[in-house]
Amino acid sequence: MIKINKAACIGGGVIGGGWIARFLLAGIDVDVFDPHPDARRIIGEVLANAERAYAMLTGAPLPKRGKLTFCGSLEEAVVDADWIQESVPERLDLKRSVLAQIDAAARPDALIGSSTSGLLPTDLQQDMQYPERLFVAHPYNPVYLLPLVEIVGGEKTAMATIKAAMEKLPPIGMKGVHIAKEIEAFVGDRLLEALWREALWLIHDDICTVETLDDVIRYSFGLRWAQMGLFETYRIAGGEAGMRHFLQQFGPCLAWPWTKLTNVVDLDDALVEKIGQQSDEQAAGRSIRELERIRDENLVGILQALKGSNDGKGWGAGKLLKEFEHSLWAAGGKTKASSDLSQPLRLIETTVSPAWVDYNGHMTEHRYLQVFGDTSDALLRLIGVDLAYVEAGQSYYTVETHIRHLAQAKLGQAIHATCQVLSVDEKRLQVFHTIHDTAAGEAIATAEHMLVHVDTRAGKAIPAAAGVLEKAGSIAAAHAALPRPEGAGRHVGQKRWGTS
Amino acid sequence: MIKINKAACIGGGVIGGGWIARFLLAGIDVDVFDPHPDARRIIGEVLANAERAYAMLTGAPLPKRGKLTFCGSLEEAVVDADWIQESVPERLDLKRSVLAQIDAAARPDALIGSSTSGLLPTDLQQDMQYPERLFVAHPYNPVYLLPLVEIVGGEKTAMATIKAAMEKLPPIGMKGVHIAKEIEAFVGDRLLEALWREALWLIHDDICTVETLDDVIRYSFGLRWAQMGLFETYRIAGGEAGMRHFLQQFGPCLAWPWTKLTNVVDLDDALVEKIGQQSDEQAAGRSIRELERIRDENLVGILQALKGSNDGKGWGAGKLLKEFEHSLWAAGGKTKASSDLSQPLRLIETTVSPAWVDYNGHMTEHRYLQVFGDTSDALLRLIGVDLAYVEAGQSYYTVETHIRHLAQAKLGQAIHATCQVLSVDEKRLQVFHTIHDTAAGEAIATAEHMLVHVDTRAGKAIPAAAGVLEKAGSIAAAHAALPRPEGAGRHVGQKRWGTS
Repeated sequence: MIKINKAACIGGGVIGGGWIARFLLAGIDVDVFDPHPDARRIIGEVLANAERAYAMLTGAPLPKRGKLTFCGSLEEAVVDADWIQESVPERLDLKRSVLAQIDAAARPDALIGSSTSGLLPTDLQQDMQYPERLFVAHPYNPVYLLPLVEIVGGEKTAMATIKAAMEKLPPIGMKGVHIAKEIEAFVGDRLLEALWREALWLIHDDICTVETLDDVIRYSFGLRWAQMGLFETYRIAGGEAGMRHFLQQFGPCLAWPWTKLTNVVDLDDALVEKIGQQSDEQAAGRSIRELERIRDENLVGILQALKGSNDGKGWGAGKLLKEFEHSLWAAGGKTKASSDLSQPLRLIETTVSPAWVDYNGHMTEHRYLQVFGDTSDALLRLIGVDLAYVEAGQSYYTVETHIRHLAQAKLGQAIHATCQVLSVDEKRLQVFHTIHDTAAGEAIATAEHMLVHVDTRAGKAIPAAAGVLEKAGSIAAAHAALPRPEGAGRHVGQKRWGTS
Repeated sequence: MIKINKAACIGGGVIGGGWIARFLLAGIDVDVFDPHPDARRIIGEVLANAERAYAMLTGAPLPKRGKLTFCGSLEEAVVDADWIQESVPERLDLKRSVLAQIDAAARPDALIGSSTSGLLPTDLQQDMQYPERLFVAHPYNPVYLLPLVEIVGGEKTAMATIKAAMEKLPPIGMKGVHIAKEIEAFVGDRLLEALWREALWLIHDDICTVETLDDVIRYSFGLRWAQMGLFETYRIAGGEAGMRHFLQQFGPCLAWPWTKLTNVVDLDDALVEKIGQQSDEQAAGRSIRELERIRDENLVGILQALKGSNDGKGWGAGKLLKEFEHSLWAAGGKTKASSDLSQPLRLIETTVSPAWVDYNGHMTEHRYLQVFGDTSDALLRLIGVDLAYVEAGQSYYTVETHIRHLAQAKLGQAIHATCQVLSVDEKRLQVFHTIHDTAAGEAIATAEHMLVHVDTRAGKAIPAAAGVLEKAGSIAAAHAALPRPEGAGRHVGQKRWGTS
């Protein structure tokens, strides 16, 4: 994958801030120019949301966060960037002038993307000296979680630019789709616009309230569309007779005089107030911050669910997340190797995610084992049992586990996990993990594990590779100097802690 | 909740079959009339899909499946039903005549719902003698997983009918939304219709392909709409300035001449063939059955993810699932009390869910502990530690766990968990759980747990209530006659199984 080295973001509202968070969390330095007085605050808030969401989204090792620099001028921000993202307000004259400025100051080989949700790239590139590098890169809010970017070229855009832009999105966890012909609003907003007009009429005519309309979406086709789109869903609806049959059957009703699409609703004060009031009722006092938090938790959960489906291969946005994590693991395995061996290894840093707690806000029992499992995985990568090793057909499997709960982890609490290697031989690896309250330093839970090295295809124990044994052995030798952990070797119900 | 005693389904295609599955899996007997020669096969296939999905969807104890009876006449099917669901083809004359037949044969107090996706209830109830009990109950495919039912009354429909229909849906896991005024296609299909027209133009004009359009939906707003609808999403997009500001800002562009909504696309042979071909390419050889399976897995995963969000209270369709499970547990807790105590208690029946497996299709380590935790929860409910007990401030917390992995659970595999109570005293409860491969009967994993009874507010151990101790004690006394499980009392790394 071809990674962006340095990004520049011109304009840092909710969309610009989302792009900044995407780049930074993928380890890319970002230079920002935004003269708005609230720019730093807004960007800071989006970034905080994004970091919270990523901590829940993945246990994969995120790269060191990129460096965020606020620049005093547009020229300073774009001068050495290789991806420049323009996210200024949606006015053609403003965008054209900003893009001409970027064009004059940027490196000739820089890619220049516009976040416009509706303007034509051909119009945007009018005043540029090098218009071939300008394209629309239209994202969706929240940009740090929703993967879609519509990539649209104008008359003067080079195909090489489109190709390069599409290639640089997966390494930041995004999905580019190339829209073949430029039209105003592209594809996504065309579809949204159509539905939005109809929705406004339904509220205007008192067919239903804002909340009922939202319920209709999120209890039915919204659930379908998170994973398959319109046509694939209808392909299934067509059943064995197939898509062509479905079209022939349902086509005629398109001409029925059902919808009000031919008219444009007048968004007068009365309708604005009606919708505003119904929306307030629906929110039931929840602030935008609370709604954002809930939305992000839900998106994280949906993405994780899609990651596990399709026989574990992932589906749609979940497949993309899986691929993104693979690239993070591949990169992260390398950077961890320099840990201090005179202490238990500090391998996992995380916060207790909303998806991990019960309704009392306590971490659910099996999530402790999830953190312990992540700790084992981190140790394995450290000793060379990485993705390539596993894909070649060998791995360590856990055969036995002993967990002690000493305190309770709570929602939002910062925790970290350490690992002491107790013993290693050709086939076996015995480890003792501890989850700590990072602020107080106390142990919350411990786990002792026996792992066995296996040929995963044959399903039987075999000796580990020499390199793996050497690395594991050197950690075990260093850890032999550490005191044996209180609680190691215990069985369930043993009278007192530490009498093993 | 007011449960349906007996349902009748007239028409058993994909939608009728989905209703039948909903009723049967909620423990309700269903009488079916459908003269179509393939009716039994189609219903059987929908039911098989539904059972597979429910096994993944919830570990809650499903009631005994209702009895399915195919009747020789419509009259026979409806005669003693209290909810009659009409799902015959979408032609007004046909539906009117079928509804008149139902009307003549049904009990006077029966509720009569029509699955029509577009016809007006006022038109449907024309020929009925008791039209006040007719309403539209419009579901979404797959009916056994998508919870939404649009409830729409006609001019002659009684409000009591609407109220009764809305109340009878939650006990079968569904969400009724009452549409205030009847219009053709109601709310959901109005919205879908608007988007569908625009989508057809985008394909017709070669702006994008079927696959690109689907990707645009499922990588962006589809993910949003699975959890919040249109207005709540835009409320967030409006940011701190709020919904009214958002409307004022984005309102004007509604009048821009972007969309082709004023025209109706001609679904001629060329367009049908183009969409058909692109849809074939997108499916990449996957059959409708495979797509259905993937869709259902994804829906299950999404519903489960939404169940865990919002600080564990659940959100949208996930909150509904949580409430449905609560009612299942409440019902199941009672029926389980008569379990055979001469054996370990069989407490959990489930299937390995797509969200639970790694990319090799093996159940992830911490999901074993999830199943063991569910097993402990089931035991606790059985001895009287139910929701009310916990909400009153006492519970059992796990303090120590020992797990052995003996084999691997794989995607889709039917598993069940048993529990042997090893010992109980005032404050402590020691249990030994086993996860079994249900088909082969073999043990896949075992877990020994020590639970301590606590005052959850004070956070300290206290004696359990007398009734709880009595029930736990009687199980422990009966289980004392069982052999001590191989593996109980082991510590990690102990040389051989069973030498404790």
